Amino acid sequence: MTGALAIVSLGPGAPGLITPDAAKALAEATDLVGYGPYLARLQPAPEQRLHAFDNRTELARAELALRLAAGGRRVALVSSGDAGVFAMAATTFEAMEKGEPSWRGLALTVIPGISAALAAAARLGAPLGGDFCVISLSDYLKPWPVIAKRLRAAAEAGFVLALYNPASAARPWQLGAAFATLREVLAGTTPVAFATNVSLAEERLTLASLATADPALAGMRTLVLIGAPTSRLIPRPAGLPWFYTPRGLPSL
Amino acid sequence: MTGALAIVSLGPGAPGLITPDAAKALAEATDLVGYGPYLARLQPAPEQRLHAFDNRTELARAELALRLAAGGRRVALVSSGDAGVFAMAATTFEAMEKGEPSWRGLALTVIPGISAALAAAARLGAPLGGDFCVISLSDYLKPWPVIAKRLRAAAEAGFVLALYNPASAARPWQLGAAFATLREVLAGTTPVAFATNVSLAEERLTLASLATADPALAGMRTLVLIGAPTSRLIPRPAGLPWFYTPRGLPSL
Repeated sequence: MTGALAIVSLGPGAPGLITPDAAKALAEATDLVGYGPYLARLQPAPEQRLHAFDNRTELARAELALRLAAGGRRVALVSSGDAGVFAMAATTFEAMEKGEPSWRGLALTVIPGISAALAAAARLGAPLGGDFCVISLSDYLKPWPVIAKRLRAAAEAGFVLALYNPASAARPWQLGAAFATLREVLAGTTPVAFATNVSLAEERLTLASLATADPALAGMRTLVLIGAPTSRLIPRPAGLPWFYTPRGLPSL
Repeated sequence: MTGALAIVSLGPGAPGLITPDAAKALAEATDLVGYGPYLARLQPAPEQRLHAFDNRTELARAELALRLAAGGRRVALVSSGDAGVFAMAATTFEAMEKGEPSWRGLALTVIPGISAALAAAARLGAPLGGDFCVISLSDYLKPWPVIAKRLRAAAEAGFVLALYNPASAARPWQLGAAFATLREVLAGTTPVAFATNVSLAEERLTLASLATADPALAGMRTLVLIGAPTSRLIPRPAGLPWFYTPRGLPSL
């Protein structure tokens, strides 16, 4: 048997948002590799081997997945959201580049999924309707000044912002610092949305303005969306207003 | 019967990349509204009413969908890729804001999907592994100088770029102008990928460098990805090199 590696995107969490291609790759795998809580969501067959990892072990997970595939196993390396967006796909190529030369010849596929920004945007309206930037606030792998520079550049140029990894126990101040930087550029009335556990039973959506947004609303499973100057709110008879960004500029 | 509107994302084209939630919304609709070629991909039931539109009629499609839902129909307004990314979701909220006040109380859901940037990235490796910006090159609704400013700002700040709507018969020069702007900021060796008809039988993937990238490789169904200074290529024994962007910065 020839080994193969599929990097499989699980989407935001709801089974209705996992693609048939992802479900098929999971079903066909001999080995499932991933962060423990993600593996626990799946329903593996008795003969499938599970390789569950802790948080912050991304490179070790990728290396094991590559090694197993090189040894002839059919491996599914699972990733939440979309594997290509701050998840396991880039990590796997980092591991490949540093690892055994033979890994470059492996049969490898990346199966895309619904990333958190798209899932959150759909629940809020259409905040990503204009040009947008996607930024990880984690300063674990890049220095904070680079992140602050990117936030400022994106806001000044009129992009909507989608912020991944806004907060954790180890990163308590970054989102507050990001808001402070953005307040120097954007109006206080700019809409800010906090979307946590999107698509799951514990989903929580909050709308605020940049002037009043409370960083404490964000946790490890929160996606933060910050509007552009063109973004708008449409009040509804019940529920949160719709948050959307028109496709064009108001002068047109 | 109470009407409802679902804005349904069809993904890049392959049935294996349509989520179960999207398939369910299509199956439950009494009326399917959308661009003709997208409706033609579906397999409607005999009792479902089809409302097929030409290109460049987005606002009319959205208005009809809202009107039908207000009249008690269960409407699926279909969108390629992810409806929230340069597609029908923002258009629908524009139509809602301009339209009947009662439309704001409609039962409306947006069902997310695999946007072209995510689908293309998965086929190429992990080019979106770092911070990235998503920009539409269409100057139909925003002036070119705004687009050029955003391209420059994003490149200067180290973002990967995903370019939607890079070219069409009506917009022949924009991608060449974008490359010229980016060459003032980025190295000529920066990887550039053209991904056309991703996930379909006609899929075509091309890798080039910014110095040599030929704008004529892009058409209406092409997504263009431009690396950041950190992006890398990993040669393979067969096929295109993997194109990926590490999660962090090389100095770390």
